[in-house]
Amino acid sequence: MAKQYVQKITAMDEDFAQWYTDVVTKAELIDYSSVRGSMIIRPYGYAIWENIKQELDRKIKETGHENVYMPLLIPESLLQKEKDHIEGFAPEVAWVTQGGTEQLTERLCIRPTSEVLFGEHFKSVVHSYRDLPKLYNQWANVVRWEKTTRPFLRTLEFLWQEGHTCHATEEEAQAETVKMLEVYARLCEEVLAIPVIKGRKTEKEKFAGAKYTYTIESLMHDGKALQAGTSHHLGDGFARAFDIHFTDKDGTLQYVHQTSWGFTTRIIGAMIMVHGDDRGLVLPPRIAPIQLMIIPIAQHKEGVLDFSYQLKDTLSEAVRVDIDAGSKKPGWKFNEYEMKGIPLRLEVGPKDMEQQQVILVRRDTGEKLVVSLAQLKHKIAELLTAIQNNLFLRAKNHREAKTHSAASFHEFETILENSSGFIKAMWCGDVACEEKIKEKTGATSRCIPFDSEAEIAVNECVCCGKQAKHFVYWAKAY
Amino acid sequence: MAKQYVQKITAMDEDFAQWYTDVVTKAELIDYSSVRGSMIIRPYGYAIWENIKQELDRKIKETGHENVYMPLLIPESLLQKEKDHIEGFAPEVAWVTQGGTEQLTERLCIRPTSEVLFGEHFKSVVHSYRDLPKLYNQWANVVRWEKTTRPFLRTLEFLWQEGHTCHATEEEAQAETVKMLEVYARLCEEVLAIPVIKGRKTEKEKFAGAKYTYTIESLMHDGKALQAGTSHHLGDGFARAFDIHFTDKDGTLQYVHQTSWGFTTRIIGAMIMVHGDDRGLVLPPRIAPIQLMIIPIAQHKEGVLDFSYQLKDTLSEAVRVDIDAGSKKPGWKFNEYEMKGIPLRLEVGPKDMEQQQVILVRRDTGEKLVVSLAQLKHKIAELLTAIQNNLFLRAKNHREAKTHSAASFHEFETILENSSGFIKAMWCGDVACEEKIKEKTGATSRCIPFDSEAEIAVNECVCCGKQAKHFVYWAKAY
Repeated sequence: MAKQYVQKITAMDEDFAQWYTDVVTKAELIDYSSVRGSMIIRPYGYAIWENIKQELDRKIKETGHENVYMPLLIPESLLQKEKDHIEGFAPEVAWVTQGGTEQLTERLCIRPTSEVLFGEHFKSVVHSYRDLPKLYNQWANVVRWEKTTRPFLRTLEFLWQEGHTCHATEEEAQAETVKMLEVYARLCEEVLAIPVIKGRKTEKEKFAGAKYTYTIESLMHDGKALQAGTSHHLGDGFARAFDIHFTDKDGTLQYVHQTSWGFTTRIIGAMIMVHGDDRGLVLPPRIAPIQLMIIPIAQHKEGVLDFSYQLKDTLSEAVRVDIDAGSKKPGWKFNEYEMKGIPLRLEVGPKDMEQQQVILVRRDTGEKLVVSLAQLKHKIAELLTAIQNNLFLRAKNHREAKTHSAASFHEFETILENSSGFIKAMWCGDVACEEKIKEKTGATSRCIPFDSEAEIAVNECVCCGKQAKHFVYWAKAY
Repeated sequence: MAKQYVQKITAMDEDFAQWYTDVVTKAELIDYSSVRGSMIIRPYGYAIWENIKQELDRKIKETGHENVYMPLLIPESLLQKEKDHIEGFAPEVAWVTQGGTEQLTERLCIRPTSEVLFGEHFKSVVHSYRDLPKLYNQWANVVRWEKTTRPFLRTLEFLWQEGHTCHATEEEAQAETVKMLEVYARLCEEVLAIPVIKGRKTEKEKFAGAKYTYTIESLMHDGKALQAGTSHHLGDGFARAFDIHFTDKDGTLQYVHQTSWGFTTRIIGAMIMVHGDDRGLVLPPRIAPIQLMIIPIAQHKEGVLDFSYQLKDTLSEAVRVDIDAGSKKPGWKFNEYEMKGIPLRLEVGPKDMEQQQVILVRRDTGEKLVVSLAQLKHKIAELLTAIQNNLFLRAKNHREAKTHSAASFHEFETILENSSGFIKAMWCGDVACEEKIKEKTGATSRCIPFDSEAEIAVNECVCCGKQAKHFVYWAKAY
């Protein structure tokens, strides 16, 4: 590395929060504005979101869902129709009380989520079993009035997709809920290279108005957990509140069973905190807006620029490629594109041209390879796959290394005093124990995993010692 | 046509407004909700918007623009920074005054447009001539507090893209403004088959805060005009208000010159009113979510369904195709997909199978063709092109037939009493005349066209008779 050009960012191990802020600003993902708690998503950050959106939208459509668009504003009376839902969301919504010069007779909230709007619409379009299932999704912005905010991770406004579906039976709704969690899990693991634990939220942590909430939980570099996506089985609670019923095949009137599921811009924060390093962002090739950056060396020398642009043209069929032929020194450019997490760098100078070769540098390992032009396309494809796989494995190994089992409360506390990460421990199912654990250690229940390998050879709650009911992943979380 | 199955919608010539409402609801483009003035965009309506968005997004990126995302909420103090802008927009914004349980010390408006947010951001990222131009775009929802609303045409909330750019010189900004209007015009004419008049808005009709506003104007079936897209040359007004300056090559400090341009969901309303007929929607093939609908005839007969599904598979490589093998009678299905404006219908029954042929029916002309399987792919491609061209030509001929010239105020009034459409007439440039014309006839100035063919052999203002300065298109408008 050309040390003299390294832009200063805080080291991860020194101050992880400051490192994160440095990366999101210096990699030009976001900018702050005078709007408290909101962020400007800059071109590079938005290009990442567009790639995620495109992949997820394709998966959502492949599983038979259709996109729709619901209103931004919700009348207060509509939000109040489902009791648990309004209790959960009322403290964190933004209220519109004035339209132009007119004082409104009823307040409108900016959607924090759209269950009630979909509820009202389903009531209007579902009449017979023939109308089911309804499999809808929308891409939208939502607002939640958060006190403390951080770019991507927690913002007043964020972008997301929210799926909303209606089914004839509880079993179908259950299958849908799990299917969409699986879609999120595959997106995270295969595209974003983020390993996740799939499981169910406890009663305390579930969505306001849901019967069950399923979640995928990921572990960040600093050992804190991050909820990467959730899928809710809503049961018939909203159906009863909004009177969404249908005539079944046998002529009886039935309530529908519903689901909802969401995935947000927050995932960009997760990607940064899972893969990033002290030189900045590290992007998985499958999502990187630019997969390969060409840096001409000694570009004033005859033929270098022409040759570099020709390379760009040739490679652009196979890979998302760009070139920086600007006037900055190569060292500065290396640094800039490392900060931006571009998976591969290609260096080419007069000597390389002579020898019909280029140099490729991996962002994830720093490895430098001399590659002949004849082999180039093939080698680039191979390396991008290798980087994608390496990022996933590295993250998985990191998670394994930071996952501990605790058989007693003392053990639980000791682990968190000395380390961070997931703690696997048994739990009695009592919310009092969940609250005590949070109060004493700062850790919350992340999920009851689907594949509950009974690794812990105890059958007592880690907190109260009574008969345990659930195997739970705990962690401090974002 | 199988008359007995025809769903009743109001005839266009009987009550055009009611016809429009019938079409948007019965073609399942939208649904109403309890949110005043907003609409639910249903799957079929949203699929049309997604196709428009995809085409436009590609054109915007091809012309070198990058997508970003700005906050939804604007602090009142920020909105007030540009004097003309706030005057224009203050009467029609929605105000957030409460966040959660907290009463805000400063009101936030929901963006009616985002010039001030981009202004603040440009100030933060533009420092040197090397940072220019900045060519940004965002896809977003905006809110304007309209009193009277109609689906797509005028809604409290609508979806759009808004481009915002910064340039080193006035000439560059001017070129950009015209270039993006041209992008809109080509989208309308080549993709949506809507002919447009390109021109400049008068001072009275221009955007609040702009130096010039350019517009594309289209004519609906009922002879009213609709503004289909606008592009604003902002000059350095916002740059001065937000202090967006840069160091030029010669070391001097300069203000940037800006543009902004927007295209909205309103265009779907235009498409309906330009191409639709008494049987419902008529969609141009290039934008239709389904270009060809297969209707099996006597589908209980052996082999018909298998054959129909095979056809679908074969054709799906070349065309957006779907099949309706539901239990409704073919006549009902014909009617439903005519209502939905699907460009081509394919009928296939046992006899057709025997003879290795199918029947194709054009939505635009009703023409029925017997086509051999060997010729099918080729014929479908040919017909889709023919329909696209026919819709454009038909709309253009309709516009020509409804475009009149007026040399005197009496002539102007007489035309509008007996007919509707565009009136071409000379104007002195005085806002008093513009207002008088509006007051007396209901017509507003639509634009001063770019290619001002001097068709009118007079040189006096149509209103006051004084020396004319501009050739203007006038019309009653949506």
